[in-house]
Amino acid sequence: MVSVVAVASHAGVSPATVSRVLAGRVPVAAETRQRVLEAIEALGYRPNEVARSLRAGRGRAVALVTGDIEQGINAALAKNVQSELEALGLDLLLFNMGHREDRLHHFLERAPSLGLRGLLLTSPHVLDMGKLMPIVERAAKSGVDIVSVGQDLSSFGISSIVHDNTGGARQAMSHLVARSCTPIAFLGRIETSAIGRARFEGYRSALLGHGHEIDPALVWDIAEGYRADAGYQATSDALAKGVQFRAVLAASDELALGAMAAAADRGLAVPDDVAFVGFGGLSWGTYSRPSMTTVALDADAAARAIGEIFGEIREGGGVPLGRRVIPTKLVLRQSA
Amino acid sequence: MVSVVAVASHAGVSPATVSRVLAGRVPVAAETRQRVLEAIEALGYRPNEVARSLRAGRGRAVALVTGDIEQGINAALAKNVQSELEALGLDLLLFNMGHREDRLHHFLERAPSLGLRGLLLTSPHVLDMGKLMPIVERAAKSGVDIVSVGQDLSSFGISSIVHDNTGGARQAMSHLVARSCTPIAFLGRIETSAIGRARFEGYRSALLGHGHEIDPALVWDIAEGYRADAGYQATSDALAKGVQFRAVLAASDELALGAMAAAADRGLAVPDDVAFVGFGGLSWGTYSRPSMTTVALDADAAARAIGEIFGEIREGGGVPLGRRVIPTKLVLRQSA
Repeated sequence: MVSVVAVASHAGVSPATVSRVLAGRVPVAAETRQRVLEAIEALGYRPNEVARSLRAGRGRAVALVTGDIEQGINAALAKNVQSELEALGLDLLLFNMGHREDRLHHFLERAPSLGLRGLLLTSPHVLDMGKLMPIVERAAKSGVDIVSVGQDLSSFGISSIVHDNTGGARQAMSHLVARSCTPIAFLGRIETSAIGRARFEGYRSALLGHGHEIDPALVWDIAEGYRADAGYQATSDALAKGVQFRAVLAASDELALGAMAAAADRGLAVPDDVAFVGFGGLSWGTYSRPSMTTVALDADAAARAIGEIFGEIREGGGVPLGRRVIPTKLVLRQSA
Repeated sequence: MVSVVAVASHAGVSPATVSRVLAGRVPVAAETRQRVLEAIEALGYRPNEVARSLRAGRGRAVALVTGDIEQGINAALAKNVQSELEALGLDLLLFNMGHREDRLHHFLERAPSLGLRGLLLTSPHVLDMGKLMPIVERAAKSGVDIVSVGQDLSSFGISSIVHDNTGGARQAMSHLVARSCTPIAFLGRIETSAIGRARFEGYRSALLGHGHEIDPALVWDIAEGYRADAGYQATSDALAKGVQFRAVLAASDELALGAMAAAADRGLAVPDDVAFVGFGGLSWGTYSRPSMTTVALDADAAARAIGEIFGEIREGGGVPLGRRVIPTKLVLRQSA
């Protein structure tokens, strides 16, 4: 049987480097990786089984780190990811970081000793990458594969699965403009949310593309959290101040629900007086009255992408670098 | 230092029995347990640290087995339980059993080899206890403490934390009767749901208590799942058939939302034509229009009760037998 040492010698690298390539860990240069793979091919080495045995000593759990599992599609994502991982013989650990980055750091530092195989980071929180990266790199070196879900961290070398937030927002804007529901307000540009920023970027670029300017009075910031009460409050405030708008693009379904309630409580008709578009595609949006037009995210497709990554890792592949974009879909209902 | 052997000799039991008492495992007779505790007291033995070290070899994860984490208060429960367990140095594993009992059996059989410390069973599904109990007992003997959350399994010797479903339903009925919103329909007596049955029992006993009979045309069964679409369908069907009712008590907020949409789509005014009460107290119910009157469950109190149980186990105590009832609260809003 061909050994790792033989492969290493053929490729001109150390056996440890071969192991790293087989284990699919991040810090191997692409060119070195290629040389190792060629040596494996040339010698007829059977990497999959070895990779499996190398990995057998590692944990069988993948942690899902969420900002808030009660919000948005997080619960659906957890459910679907659990099912994907189960098919691979892996368990799902749940960790709630809330909006506290120190909790994420602490958990990442513990990840290797927990024997985690992987970590799915789904928090939308804008992260201090200077602080985070050394911790991520230590975890990756210990064999914990990290995937960002929702937020694009691919420029930092972290494999990312992202919804097309900017494209989805732009599509919603085109719909509202085509229906002459202007001016359009944006509800929920949370400065500390990377996902909120991406959705706002769709709003901004669509308005500029249609030759409009950005009116600061129509951009409603929210301190934290995508909850309905914040949407209600921001919309009530704008209506009380006499701000003029014919539509609201909200950064979440929860915000849109609160905003619609604020409009209803002032006797406004939806969508005739004001139209509303949410973001998320949560199941109850079909049954609010009026029902909610929304930019639907695809939790199932995101979970499948995660399953594919861990399936490839099991076969001896590495975490794919770069990002994978999951399309969003504008679901038209009564509210816009 | 006083040894386990000395305690065993003083109590007239085997050292294994002392270990079982310290580890808090189920199969120790109350009288034996008492004798061991007295010997510990008499000899000045320090059980807590030993109990901790005995447990150190066990896993540090507790699994939450849900029917569907997207429904009802399950996501809130998962979040709050994770926070309670984290304070005890424990991790939360998530497992979705769906409506398939064989998946629960399989997972329970794996529990000891997963090194689980505990398992929280939150499925509302009516279980085949004849099949389940031998598996539960094997898991308990291997040191996996099992707690039922939501469904009362205390008569089978499984520690249970239950919401006051029957009392909550009865309170909602009293409110509807006091407002003369009769006749009242019950939406969502899922025959396979123990929790659905408990809520229906509140409806049934309240009606009988007020001198009314149960009209089968006003009890709307649902095949499976507490989702809004099922509530919409059942209510639409009843309205199409001309069934007369002035109120609907729904077994979940999701069902009530669907039911309210069905009423709105037929031009009925809520609550003047038909009043609706949900079950759950989910956050969006505040912002539906009309907002939803609901029997609120207390996910936070349930999570605290779970934290207390695992805190006691850590201190060397056993899983408390019997059940603990978490009160529900009728939250009055616009829909009833």
